[in-house]
Amino acid sequence: MIIVLKPGTSEEERERIVGTIEDAGLSPHVLIGKERTVIAVIGDERKLQQQTLSAIPGVEKALPILSPYKLVSREFKKEDTIIDVDGVKIGGGQIVMMAGPCSVETQDLLSGIASEVKAAGASILRGGAFKPRTSPYSFQGLGEEGLEFLAAAKKQTGLPVITEIMDPRDMPMIIKHADIIQIGARNMQNFRLLSEAGKQNKPVMLKRGLSATIKEFLLSAEYILSEGNDQVMLCERGIRTFETATRNTLDLSAIPVLKKLTHLPIIVDPSHAVGKTSLIPAMAKAAVAAGADGLMIEVHSNPMEAFCDGDQAMLPHDFKSLVVDLKRVAAAVDRSI
Amino acid sequence: MIIVLKPGTSEEERERIVGTIEDAGLSPHVLIGKERTVIAVIGDERKLQQQTLSAIPGVEKALPILSPYKLVSREFKKEDTIIDVDGVKIGGGQIVMMAGPCSVETQDLLSGIASEVKAAGASILRGGAFKPRTSPYSFQGLGEEGLEFLAAAKKQTGLPVITEIMDPRDMPMIIKHADIIQIGARNMQNFRLLSEAGKQNKPVMLKRGLSATIKEFLLSAEYILSEGNDQVMLCERGIRTFETATRNTLDLSAIPVLKKLTHLPIIVDPSHAVGKTSLIPAMAKAAVAAGADGLMIEVHSNPMEAFCDGDQAMLPHDFKSLVVDLKRVAAAVDRSI
Amino acid sequence: MIIVLKPGTSEEERERIVGTIEDAGLSPHVLIGKERTVIAVIGDERKLQQQTLSAIPGVEKALPILSPYKLVSREFKKEDTIIDVDGVKIGGGQIVMMAGPCSVETQDLLSGIASEVKAAGASILRGGAFKPRTSPYSFQGLGEEGLEFLAAAKKQTGLPVITEIMDPRDMPMIIKHADIIQIGARNMQNFRLLSEAGKQNKPVMLKRGLSATIKEFLLSAEYILSEGNDQVMLCERGIRTFETATRNTLDLSAIPVLKKLTHLPIIVDPSHAVGKTSLIPAMAKAAVAAGADGLMIEVHSNPMEAFCDGDQAMLPHDFKSLVVDLKRVAAAVDRSI
Amino acid sequence: MIIVLKPGTSEEERERIVGTIEDAGLSPHVLIGKERTVIAVIGDERKLQQQTLSAIPGVEKALPILSPYKLVSREFKKEDTIIDVDGVKIGGGQIVMMAGPCSVETQDLLSGIASEVKAAGASILRGGAFKPRTSPYSFQGLGEEGLEFLAAAKKQTGLPVITEIMDPRDMPMIIKHADIIQIGARNMQNFRLLSEAGKQNKPVMLKRGLSATIKEFLLSAEYILSEGNDQVMLCERGIRTFETATRNTLDLSAIPVLKKLTHLPIIVDPSHAVGKTSLIPAMAKAAVAAGADGLMIEVHSNPMEAFCDGDQAMLPHDFKSLVVDLKRVAAAVDRSI
Repeated sequence: MIIVLKPGTSEEERERIVGTIEDAGLSPHVLIGKERTVIAVIGDERKLQQQTLSAIPGVEKALPILSPYKLVSREFKKEDTIIDVDGVKIGGGQIVMMAGPCSVETQDLLSGIASEVKAAGASILRGGAFKPRTSPYSFQGLGEEGLEFLAAAKKQTGLPVITEIMDPRDMPMIIKHADIIQIGARNMQNFRLLSEAGKQNKPVMLKRGLSATIKEFLLSAEYILSEGNDQVMLCERGIRTFETATRNTLDLSAIPVLKKLTHLPIIVDPSHAVGKTSLIPAMAKAAVAAGADGLMIEVHSNPMEAFCDGDQAMLPHDFKSLVVDLKRVAAAVDRSI
Repeated sequence: MIIVLKPGTSEEERERIVGTIEDAGLSPHVLIGKERTVIAVIGDERKLQQQTLSAIPGVEKALPILSPYKLVSREFKKEDTIIDVDGVKIGGGQIVMMAGPCSVETQDLLSGIASEVKAAGASILRGGAFKPRTSPYSFQGLGEEGLEFLAAAKKQTGLPVITEIMDPRDMPMIIKHADIIQIGARNMQNFRLLSEAGKQNKPVMLKRGLSATIKEFLLSAEYILSEGNDQVMLCERGIRTFETATRNTLDLSAIPVLKKLTHLPIIVDPSHAVGKTSLIPAMAKAAVAAGADGLMIEVHSNPMEAFCDGDQAMLPHDFKSLVVDLKRVAAAVDRSI
Repeated sequence: MIIVLKPGTSEEERERIVGTIEDAGLSPHVLIGKERTVIAVIGDERKLQQQTLSAIPGVEKALPILSPYKLVSREFKKEDTIIDVDGVKIGGGQIVMMAGPCSVETQDLLSGIASEVKAAGASILRGGAFKPRTSPYSFQGLGEEGLEFLAAAKKQTGLPVITEIMDPRDMPMIIKHADIIQIGARNMQNFRLLSEAGKQNKPVMLKRGLSATIKEFLLSAEYILSEGNDQVMLCERGIRTFETATRNTLDLSAIPVLKKLTHLPIIVDPSHAVGKTSLIPAMAKAAVAAGADGLMIEVHSNPMEAFCDGDQAMLPHDFKSLVVDLKRVAAAVDRSI
Repeated sequence: MIIVLKPGTSEEERERIVGTIEDAGLSPHVLIGKERTVIAVIGDERKLQQQTLSAIPGVEKALPILSPYKLVSREFKKEDTIIDVDGVKIGGGQIVMMAGPCSVETQDLLSGIASEVKAAGASILRGGAFKPRTSPYSFQGLGEEGLEFLAAAKKQTGLPVITEIMDPRDMPMIIKHADIIQIGARNMQNFRLLSEAGKQNKPVMLKRGLSATIKEFLLSAEYILSEGNDQVMLCERGIRTFETATRNTLDLSAIPVLKKLTHLPIIVDPSHAVGKTSLIPAMAKAAVAAGADGLMIEVHSNPMEAFCDGDQAMLPHDFKSLVVDLKRVAAAVDRSI
């Protein structure tokens, strides 16, 4: 931690700050400059609260040197984490395709889509049984029945299943049926839900919040790892900006940034980011080229009658040609699908 | 709903769209213009899904005419909602001051602060027993013990208590001790928590999410009202922007915007918005001048040793002078504190 | 400057960085911590380029300690700058009202509005002769003829005139007719225009760019002062955020932030920020309560037929009642209008 | 244009609105719905001012149906624009690499870099003689001398030159030496500069403003085309968001969005967007995969001693391997470099 003092801070105030640092078991180094005095703190700065230090009279600002997360960081673990979901490896050389409808609607429809995305090259089936909807008057998902449909589709196709959890009280139901627990963007800082997911022995996919910084995103993942569950993958799905031409702005630079900071696999969800079917192929290719470890794409056999987000679902047939194109891009960056 | 067709849409496609609208029990009016054809839909457009319509081939965009919320709107209820919390009226001529520490720490400290803020003019005591913290390694709140300290402080001072809920499983504990249930910014779209709060017979204060639009904010409030609880107040607490000089950007224009759209009372929390004690007085005065129905301000008798957010807590003595200043501003806009 | 080294940086790399610092005539202090080594630099860090330092192998980041501007800062000049425009003092106890139409249209209309806003309490007349318009097909202003209309309106009413410059080639024409040179939000980083304004002996009002941070805003003002012109006032007019309920988000916290950092007067333009007449009064009152030194408000006697921005212009009559209300708020914060 | 009336609007007010529309030579269609009355306007809505309509009492909002730009749109011109710069085709099957230093420093350095980037596969040389710098104390460019260095480097290598203009007064000097006129992000809404560029017979590269929407970006290009110059290419270079892990957020979804809306070629500048050398390769590959027609990349043979932006310049050697990688990605999307 570097503590910058206000100009004109008295020696007494300075001594008090030095004392606070020493009380925390750390070593302060006072450096008196021409325009400012700074105190460099040697030791584990995580013991000091940046915000509390800023409250001390005489302190202009406190600049942390270390990142606030630990278990998710590359410094803590150098090699990439590879998550094994029923034999599907996420985070290695292979890029994983997760596909399926936004929400689970009927068994027939789901099973049909599941077979088609499998044939097209998907290895994980997505589908929401609990749907976070902006309006209380929109379709909220089938709940447990939807989970059962997913389980049946899995039995039929062999595809492991990823589905979203919205409430810690649903955890037993979710882990009974799902192979990957999804925590959505709106719940990225639902810390109790994160802790609950951290106590499970199931992989978790954590989506980035609409206005979450990379640092906050990693701290939310840290919540899960700090409870003991290190099978976590991160999903970039677009951030909120001023631009309205797309639903959100897909931040693909998050991929190389995260790859430097963390060992966890990175998934990209272009469907929710752009919100328009016609834009998905370009962004899916870009995500693969930028180094994503997997993609999550919405596929529906009849988007015009989908219960939600019909305008961003691809037809199975279009998804199939997309995977063909993606394989070429993957090969061009020495990966495979 | 206004549906704009793509240039060159075939008559067949147009007829299909017209059919979809009629199937929903609404009346479509086709208007053929020079450069575009539009279909105006007469009837309750909430029956049509904007996103599903956008998925129909030939549709360029679908523009909703009505706002998607109902119970929270001024059209539904013209007069201002006034919430009565143990005799304290929120939403009327009087501007309510809610004050107290960020987190509940010890009984003594809390009781001391409670007495001081009461003497200074506060009529509601704030304090967090469950704290949503960005990092898993930060202080997470005292939990139930904290709620008991709040109850004791209430007994002693007579101040009703507002405290945050983070998990639907804590609801029984919270409603036992709190007079106002607070739902924080990070949980504004935790829809299961909103529904749970909607089933209680207690006032709820809903904070605006960091990147929530006014429309999403009102839809989240609609979740609570649609479950039967209409004692809801809204709290503006700063939105996330590119500016880093303040913790968040306090969007005071939300006050007049919300006053036009909704009948619910509006509270402003300048402490979390600006994140620096020295900036709070200016923003508190501005909020009162802009028409806020109440303010929530963090007060701590020893900010340097606060367990959280010490840099944004005012000293009781400074809070006292602030209230004196705010009374003058309130009078200048024909309100009182 | 604090330079944080990457973990595992070799001694050789460290020595190279130390050498670079010494070559710049500054004193480096190496502090070897448990997890990171940092180098604190004593001396005028403005001699070091933060970006160039970051390019040196082994450097993780370079954290500047000092603010990059000088002449605009409170540290450089403690007392508030007061600008005298033909006897109207900007930046002292009195809050200045600038009012008038968005664009100058006809002499009659302008003169009429000028008389009305003067009667209502305005002391500066605003009006655009050169209009920065998003579309090339929108009205671009009357140019020199508009400036002559402004000069005539000034002669008639005695109100000094503020008008916008868009092109350094127009400077002679502008300074001939205007009393305050306005540089608009879109030109806040038109550095050649800033330098040109810095060479004039006329007050300048610099508007904050739509996505300019406070730091960039002050650096743009520094361009003007560094050329010799210290009669600069800053104007907050709303920043671009994700919210669409208002045209822009008025960042009133910029007022107390700027008051701490700079000695220059702060004007607020609520009209462009909110973009809707009905929201202006609340924000104008809030700006006064937050400490603004002046307001700029669009007034038009027939908004429905205005050549631009009709939806944000107040009627003269409404402006008059607003000033009455603002006088009360000003008095409540010990100022006057 | 669709005009939505406020609930409770009188027949008299409605008739006035209808009259305004008819006066503009357009046909209004009144549609009386259950909750709202809307007026659909048939004819060229560009004759109506959206903002002025919103000012009429009784109007809740005015929704434009058509896009406000014309010449830049795909509707106006279906086939892709291909710009020929001294034989280098921009906008066709070939992806163009523009490379060189941020600013021109010395003739030797520039010539050396020019030869190296040419050998690596670049076909256009970039270099700034006039530099828009946030601080007045940063290096502002060599001016005309820099342009001469560029001309000499062109003579030597045969590479056409792109350089930035900041002031309309410099146009004669710029067009004498440059093959492509660059208008930077900070000047995207410097409308006088746009008009000046529109009068030249030279290709223009227009960079997207830091907070410009796609619509505003296209309207700025429309300024240039409307003056007669249709050799315009658009450059995405990152937008300003809340994220600070990268300098800006590269909005790659702008590529497919723009490809749908306009016929103009799209260039991507990953260097300025991410601001860190190590992130450039991933984003360059992603841009190619997403459909960019060209890339602009900063290359410097000694980034540690660059006069500006050293932390985002690649070494010539690294640029060379990047081009090798990019060729593979280009081939995977049926393009070539």
